Amino acid sequence: MAETIYLDYNATAPIRESVMEKVLSVMKIEGNPSSVHGPGRRAKAIVEEARTQVAALVNARARDVVFTSGGTEANNAVLRATGAKTLIISEIEHDCVLAAAKTSGLETKFIKVDANGTVSIDHLKSLLAEGPEKPLVSVMMANNETGVIQPIQQIVEVSKEYGASVHCDAVQAAGRLEIDFASLGLDYLTLSSHKIGGPQGVGAVVLAPTAPLNAFIAGGGQELGRRSGTENVAGISGFGVAAIEALSDIHQKAKTKALKDRLEAELREFANDVIIVGDQAPRLGNTSCLIMPGVKGETQVMHFDLNGIAISSGSACSSGKVKASHVLKALGFDDDIASCSIRVSLGLNMSDSDIDAFIAAWKKLYDRTQKS
Amino acid sequence: MAETIYLDYNATAPIRESVMEKVLSVMKIEGNPSSVHGPGRRAKAIVEEARTQVAALVNARARDVVFTSGGTEANNAVLRATGAKTLIISEIEHDCVLAAAKTSGLETKFIKVDANGTVSIDHLKSLLAEGPEKPLVSVMMANNETGVIQPIQQIVEVSKEYGASVHCDAVQAAGRLEIDFASLGLDYLTLSSHKIGGPQGVGAVVLAPTAPLNAFIAGGGQELGRRSGTENVAGISGFGVAAIEALSDIHQKAKTKALKDRLEAELREFANDVIIVGDQAPRLGNTSCLIMPGVKGETQVMHFDLNGIAISSGSACSSGKVKASHVLKALGFDDDIASCSIRVSLGLNMSDSDIDAFIAAWKKLYDRTQKS
Repeated sequence: MAETIYLDYNATAPIRESVMEKVLSVMKIEGNPSSVHGPGRRAKAIVEEARTQVAALVNARARDVVFTSGGTEANNAVLRATGAKTLIISEIEHDCVLAAAKTSGLETKFIKVDANGTVSIDHLKSLLAEGPEKPLVSVMMANNETGVIQPIQQIVEVSKEYGASVHCDAVQAAGRLEIDFASLGLDYLTLSSHKIGGPQGVGAVVLAPTAPLNAFIAGGGQELGRRSGTENVAGISGFGVAAIEALSDIHQKAKTKALKDRLEAELREFANDVIIVGDQAPRLGNTSCLIMPGVKGETQVMHFDLNGIAISSGSACSSGKVKASHVLKALGFDDDIASCSIRVSLGLNMSDSDIDAFIAAWKKLYDRTQKS
Repeated sequence: MAETIYLDYNATAPIRESVMEKVLSVMKIEGNPSSVHGPGRRAKAIVEEARTQVAALVNARARDVVFTSGGTEANNAVLRATGAKTLIISEIEHDCVLAAAKTSGLETKFIKVDANGTVSIDHLKSLLAEGPEKPLVSVMMANNETGVIQPIQQIVEVSKEYGASVHCDAVQAAGRLEIDFASLGLDYLTLSSHKIGGPQGVGAVVLAPTAPLNAFIAGGGQELGRRSGTENVAGISGFGVAAIEALSDIHQKAKTKALKDRLEAELREFANDVIIVGDQAPRLGNTSCLIMPGVKGETQVMHFDLNGIAISSGSACSSGKVKASHVLKALGFDDDIASCSIRVSLGLNMSDSDIDAFIAAWKKLYDRTQKS
């Protein structure tokens, strides 16, 4: 079987070679970091090294990094465990933020986005002005489906005027944008290991030094009482290595963006009815959300799969589901159009020939469906 | 450096060779199990194979196994997400059950244990009789500090008479006792991978077919809506392999028990004031909780560590903490005595010489402290 051309990095990125080596070496010696004896202390040192590495990725203090089992747990923890009684979140947040808000029982208000998928600062202001006091505002740094980068700096400034705390889900932005947690003035930021080439099953909450975080998972009091459960030492160590590599990869992001730009330009030239979602807004260099009118996203995914190319329709989590993307609906697309979208998300290892293969397969499907 | 003699399997068991191989091979190919394309489907198949393997360990249906990030998350999920309004838990539950109960905000009653650390069925009955209706009863299968095996069958029978649901934390029992989830009549059972030689950061909730479990971690709807977040595919695959091996290891448990029995017999012969906690009750064959009067557990742990032997005082999670074990206090020991306990927990790879080394180090410390 020919190797799959994997253009679905936003779902999960292939694990880095160096990460695998680290995970394997740590698995061989692992102890319980809470144990006082030698193996325990060695395990603890490994976790603390990774904490420093992950902190470096977003310019935070190591002690303000709390490891979790992934981005979903991290987002659940922040939404439910800050003490805020009201949530203000954007309409285009990841399913886990929407679901955590819903199940939290907290009053939740939704910030609208414009036709390009950028959160409206004016609407945020009006929601903040309504009260009540001290809500938690949660807006992602870059959208997982469209790649559109959100104006986090402005969101923080406006929110702070009203005494709100601010959380930013940086799961898709990490390793693709330079993130300076300290200068942004955020209270909470969340990360996922497997989106940057680390192991699955690991993530983190990064906190401002004064930000409260009640334990969402309670127990033995690990992570300075902020997240209980025996640490996934090998996974965490791999996350640390991935963080360091992702940080040094950022300077290469122009390469990925050039490939994506070519992909979009060639499709546009070929088919003037292709819609490139959010193309008037700043976007991640690796993500392209494409609508081929009249062809369901699922049909497109299957077509590409048969051609040895892995892409997704909407977020991976929603892949099996029938309903149209809540993100595209928030941008104003109706169900019919929204259900015809796919997401192409690139990694650093892509080559021109991968993009050529994608374009050829896209054109083939377009020709077959649009000319009939 | 000489290799550590590791007698702290209840804190974390060394990872099995075959598990490491599996984890490594899966890391190389991993996709997101929610993705519809080839890599996604392959990842999903790996998760489902592991689900079958973990189900086999406790004789449950694969579809009733929900993967989590570990035993702590699993216990938190069960205590908070069954819909029960009242909890009845034993005084000797693991910290994570106690903490999950406390932070749940639910009314919680505590079942007493006798001087051997066995849960009192009579006290459970009286708590159930008090009402209110339909509580969740949570009792562990075997205690992590003493190894004392709890009368789960009786607990289920009594609880069912009062319409209660029953959860059993089998984290320490799995792989050491034969567990038949279906015949026990339990509603919920929780497992941890790293206690049976699987990777850290993976666990499971096993449910009765009719038992409700609201998502504790909400989001993309993975695990049939019962636990969201991208699955830790490599970790889960390792848990599956560990489950299969742990199941086939159970028949060898007599070997471990013989070593533990010899250890206890020799200490008893040497020092008639040694206390072997719970020695009148059925216990796990691998666990021994030993009190050396007048010598703090932490001092003992350091002594053994200097002698190249890894043991713990109390549970690993509590290791750094000063307070005496809540388990030993529940058995009626005062703080002074309870704080002089250590836990020795063996694995299958132990040899007679490991036990000899432990006994020699114990005697050395005893001589130095008791004769002065």
